[in-house]
Amino acid sequence: MSGNTLGKLFAVTNFGESHGPAIGCVIDGCPPGMALNEADIQPDLDRRRPGTSKFVTQRQEPDRVEILSGVYEGRTTGTPICLLIRNQDQRSKDYSEIAQTFRPGHADYTYWRKFGIRDPRGGGRSSARLTAPTVAAGAVAKKWLLERYGTTFRGCMTHVGDLAIGFESWEHVPNNPFFAPVADVTPIEDYMNALRKSGDSCGARVRVTAQRMPVGLGEPLYGRLDADIAQAMMGINAVKGVEIGDGFASVAHRGSQHGDSLLPGAVFESNRDGGVLGGISSGQDLEVAIGIKPTSSILVPRASLNTAGEPVEIITKGRHDPCVGIRATPIAEALLALVVMDHALRHRAQCGDVRLEFPPA
Amino acid sequence: MSGNTLGKLFAVTNFGESHGPAIGCVIDGCPPGMALNEADIQPDLDRRRPGTSKFVTQRQEPDRVEILSGVYEGRTTGTPICLLIRNQDQRSKDYSEIAQTFRPGHADYTYWRKFGIRDPRGGGRSSARLTAPTVAAGAVAKKWLLERYGTTFRGCMTHVGDLAIGFESWEHVPNNPFFAPVADVTPIEDYMNALRKSGDSCGARVRVTAQRMPVGLGEPLYGRLDADIAQAMMGINAVKGVEIGDGFASVAHRGSQHGDSLLPGAVFESNRDGGVLGGISSGQDLEVAIGIKPTSSILVPRASLNTAGEPVEIITKGRHDPCVGIRATPIAEALLALVVMDHALRHRAQCGDVRLEFPPA
Amino acid sequence: MSGNTLGKLFAVTNFGESHGPAIGCVIDGCPPGMALNEADIQPDLDRRRPGTSKFVTQRQEPDRVEILSGVYEGRTTGTPICLLIRNQDQRSKDYSEIAQTFRPGHADYTYWRKFGIRDPRGGGRSSARLTAPTVAAGAVAKKWLLERYGTTFRGCMTHVGDLAIGFESWEHVPNNPFFAPVADVTPIEDYMNALRKSGDSCGARVRVTAQRMPVGLGEPLYGRLDADIAQAMMGINAVKGVEIGDGFASVAHRGSQHGDSLLPGAVFESNRDGGVLGGISSGQDLEVAIGIKPTSSILVPRASLNTAGEPVEIITKGRHDPCVGIRATPIAEALLALVVMDHALRHRAQCGDVRLEFPPA
Amino acid sequence: MSGNTLGKLFAVTNFGESHGPAIGCVIDGCPPGMALNEADIQPDLDRRRPGTSKFVTQRQEPDRVEILSGVYEGRTTGTPICLLIRNQDQRSKDYSEIAQTFRPGHADYTYWRKFGIRDPRGGGRSSARLTAPTVAAGAVAKKWLLERYGTTFRGCMTHVGDLAIGFESWEHVPNNPFFAPVADVTPIEDYMNALRKSGDSCGARVRVTAQRMPVGLGEPLYGRLDADIAQAMMGINAVKGVEIGDGFASVAHRGSQHGDSLLPGAVFESNRDGGVLGGISSGQDLEVAIGIKPTSSILVPRASLNTAGEPVEIITKGRHDPCVGIRATPIAEALLALVVMDHALRHRAQCGDVRLEFPPA
Repeated sequence: MSGNTLGKLFAVTNFGESHGPAIGCVIDGCPPGMALNEADIQPDLDRRRPGTSKFVTQRQEPDRVEILSGVYEGRTTGTPICLLIRNQDQRSKDYSEIAQTFRPGHADYTYWRKFGIRDPRGGGRSSARLTAPTVAAGAVAKKWLLERYGTTFRGCMTHVGDLAIGFESWEHVPNNPFFAPVADVTPIEDYMNALRKSGDSCGARVRVTAQRMPVGLGEPLYGRLDADIAQAMMGINAVKGVEIGDGFASVAHRGSQHGDSLLPGAVFESNRDGGVLGGISSGQDLEVAIGIKPTSSILVPRASLNTAGEPVEIITKGRHDPCVGIRATPIAEALLALVVMDHALRHRAQCGDVRLEFPPA
Repeated sequence: MSGNTLGKLFAVTNFGESHGPAIGCVIDGCPPGMALNEADIQPDLDRRRPGTSKFVTQRQEPDRVEILSGVYEGRTTGTPICLLIRNQDQRSKDYSEIAQTFRPGHADYTYWRKFGIRDPRGGGRSSARLTAPTVAAGAVAKKWLLERYGTTFRGCMTHVGDLAIGFESWEHVPNNPFFAPVADVTPIEDYMNALRKSGDSCGARVRVTAQRMPVGLGEPLYGRLDADIAQAMMGINAVKGVEIGDGFASVAHRGSQHGDSLLPGAVFESNRDGGVLGGISSGQDLEVAIGIKPTSSILVPRASLNTAGEPVEIITKGRHDPCVGIRATPIAEALLALVVMDHALRHRAQCGDVRLEFPPA
Repeated sequence: MSGNTLGKLFAVTNFGESHGPAIGCVIDGCPPGMALNEADIQPDLDRRRPGTSKFVTQRQEPDRVEILSGVYEGRTTGTPICLLIRNQDQRSKDYSEIAQTFRPGHADYTYWRKFGIRDPRGGGRSSARLTAPTVAAGAVAKKWLLERYGTTFRGCMTHVGDLAIGFESWEHVPNNPFFAPVADVTPIEDYMNALRKSGDSCGARVRVTAQRMPVGLGEPLYGRLDADIAQAMMGINAVKGVEIGDGFASVAHRGSQHGDSLLPGAVFESNRDGGVLGGISSGQDLEVAIGIKPTSSILVPRASLNTAGEPVEIITKGRHDPCVGIRATPIAEALLALVVMDHALRHRAQCGDVRLEFPPA
Repeated sequence: MSGNTLGKLFAVTNFGESHGPAIGCVIDGCPPGMALNEADIQPDLDRRRPGTSKFVTQRQEPDRVEILSGVYEGRTTGTPICLLIRNQDQRSKDYSEIAQTFRPGHADYTYWRKFGIRDPRGGGRSSARLTAPTVAAGAVAKKWLLERYGTTFRGCMTHVGDLAIGFESWEHVPNNPFFAPVADVTPIEDYMNALRKSGDSCGARVRVTAQRMPVGLGEPLYGRLDADIAQAMMGINAVKGVEIGDGFASVAHRGSQHGDSLLPGAVFESNRDGGVLGGISSGQDLEVAIGIKPTSSILVPRASLNTAGEPVEIITKGRHDPCVGIRATPIAEALLALVVMDHALRHRAQCGDVRLEFPPA
């Protein structure tokens, strides 16, 4: 499986460049018979798309998804589902200058070293725009998991830069442009306004969760559920850290304090392990957190080199997110759903005949 | 590829149970012609093996590796290398009691729910003992990467429980049983002695690094180098968090401060991104940290259930690590080497003809 | 990797249905830096497309390919190449009747049993139309292999039904609509005219070859070059047999007669093994033959069942190939090129450092 | 997945060399809970093992299989099953001469060209001895498929060299050393005796079948059941041709004659397609035939080269099969079972929820 495919049985192959004709993905392995049309996918794309507030990139992209295959008379047929999104707001300009220089902390340099060539238009393949097809595929996985197991996925931003947002309620998340789980987002707005004026960027921390999880998903040794979640999350642009459950806080725990004891009725007394034990889902909520670094495309001048190895000063103009973490919530949700979906199919392949009477009522 | 295989081109398939006849792995895809014998592998196994100090499990296992295939007259042939380690200290005892109960925070419950059956002897397949074949395979990868690219791998423990160890020098690491990069390990010994007396366990934080890295390894979108590192690390028993470079600290950074600028001579002014930009190695050192939770097998009594759903009290006697993080360093090194190795082969498959004149002298 | 992806490193994911909006594929893993545009791909599509003579289906499809990604300023970038072909001549009609019945010898029945649903429009996913994206991907592989190794691919039809065509010269192949390697195709025309009048269909035998092959491609045990060629060929619609080299004729050979002896100058005295020894390419021409069954969509009435299990009589009207083997030549060439391409990349991944002084001049 | 792994979900990784310490395989993905011990596997190994008659190699190998993992208290646990067979009759001798020369028509040359090194002892990795672990893995698959679906696998030799054996009854197959489905094997014995005296070798044709097949197995486009069968069969040592159903005879058929019509009661009127329609199993018997070339290791002197490119004359002494096809029957059965097993798991992963009321009683 090459680098642009995620998943083994529910396999999503992503293609496209930021300013090419189109971006999209092919989903291979979707179970047949599920009702599906564009309206099932568009809402998650709308949550991720640019231009929806002044705090994100002002690029205007409707991100309309088109289903090209795999659906007949409104139902999945079990054959590959191609989802296509045409690029529209690719501003025509001269890229010759930036094509020869490397933004500090950006993929410009490494793509060029790896491939000997790169598409510099809007970041080309390394643009966060390529998360859109992932979000679209995630919507398909979410729908199946909801119908089959009742599983739901939610996420929120818990920190922006050095500002801790806190958690009040999931219900606030859709009511503000930050995916913040708080009623009053004035502090976030102030923080972001100051940031934008400085021409700088900042990081973010995002939490994502799955509820009503099936028990038994994950394949030790290497194909553990938490391992595959970590893989998917660390693969999101700008993510530098991943935690499951209590994450790094577990380092300072005692064993007597950490363990998620099973109590009568098959209830766990805590969920410090974030829904995964020994690499297999326990049925508790999946709890994942990711740390996102600040965007490298900023207005502050930076030292760098060009392809001839000569020193240059870089200022990245154009339309960029001052905090890519703001739009990361639906992306992380989608990836979590894709990993769970893949493991749900893998699990029933091997263990579809396992029958246990536990847990008791 | 099923759940017990790691890697796509340098593919390691792991097998065995803690108290079965043997554990081992098959390495498929090793380049031919490399000098290899057991003495190349044994040292890393010895660093990981149990019973080497009073701070780790007292199980006595020589962990002697035997090469069963893939080597002829002391050189790899390019065919699968089977590495076998016979289990020796499998104490015979009655497992019928623990076979019916679930240790809190342990894989006991999830294995049983997934498979409907589990091997309870010493944790069976979920035992950290199964990291031994991974370490053995990692030694093969390390040797090739050193010979081919000069790449080296090192690791150390930086925190044990809530005790910050600090970093003085890599040279101290082999001189103490904790893989601690400090000259005086008395505080660690005191900490561990107190922990053992309490019958409890604690977590740890481990750092691992690769130096003299080739540039260009990693396959965006999903097969990024950092994503695959995260996958491998989160798959180590008891790991709950992974960071690349500055990790979660990046959340509070400003973009103007975070970016690793390229300076004349192709030198980077910092390495906040831990050697990976856009999912591709930059040539800087890989910097990875993992957070490990406390062992769930402790002498402190805990509430739990049995397979009939009835409440029970659990005390885990027997030979266990009070801090599994102590032996995690060689494991994390091995996994980092395996991921780099796989991507080194993947990179030359696709980009073997790329020739650039950069960087200048 | 799911069922709609071919290849491990040069991975082609195919999507689409015969009468859906579009068909296409995504190529992941193409080496960067190769000049590529639509004009490199269109000629092979034109060789395969319908409506080019009265002996094939009269469906009119220009089969214009559009490159949606992976190419920048006329060169491959190493990122996924999406190739899209819009369907145009999807005649609107009532499919409700055929949707409930099964053509004898056709995928109608098995798709329905497998998925519980099927797209009946023109055969949906089971249509031979889905070979078009394969042919398009094959053109990309052919180009790279020609530029990198000088390897070329050719094919021809050697039998149509019970008529043996014979072999005169490769130069005749492009001069007739049958891919026949003979100057005078009158017997074939007469044969096909009689067949069309009868409303029946017939099979064909096709030969395909690769010349100037690199030595050393193929991965025993299971990933042999000939095994992967057999997989690809047997996957073509209606193919029921595959031979490498002398194929089934080898059964009656003596060992003393069969072996391809190496003679001074590294010349082989024969090529009975068709360019593969022990699963690895020998440098001789690859020689492959496939046997294709007659089309199941015919005007002759047949007994069958409907989805209610009731007996029905079936006559397949509409536009169909009386001999699908006629258009199979470019398809088989494409698949051979795709398999060789994948193994060329796999080989240099593992064995890129092997240097031998053989063969002598 | 590297070249020594077969299958995607029931994944068999093969290792070992003909004269190394051991050969074996790791089965990853076996469903849990199935009763399994060595006695379930040994009979198929005994059918394949050498030295059982004067018509096969006289190497004496008991081929005792040892289960090293994946089974607890006589049941599969769902974790990897390692099967080990120690080599015993590795006659010590000087291989230095044959190590420098290439047997005509043998893998000697291509292994050397690919890897730059080869294990010459008894053919090393290219020896047909490496089919033993495949046969062992196949026995596990056969057991599960029999218990789960009632599916059975059988094979027989139908031609040896230019002698057509004919088919009388399956019941004769176990009663003679040729796997011949006839009561009187005198003609075969005479044929083989004459062959052995001549120091030459011959080919064979083998038929293999699966009965009581589940409907719906196979994943078009590229992962068709017949395609994967062809891959597995062509990967057997010395196989040069594969047919499904009527195979190459289909070329001369008319469509009106070929199609397997469905009749009331969901009965097919014929099985020309060999149990596969559109790449998916129809529920009819799988019918597969393979053509095997004569052994290249013969006593007749042949011209060849050495590694210096100089002409040499080769006579292969030692213990070799004059007709490798004789022992091919259990190998082909095993591979057919492995492919069906893998697809059975893949099918229920994707289509586990499909419920149809067809066929009617």
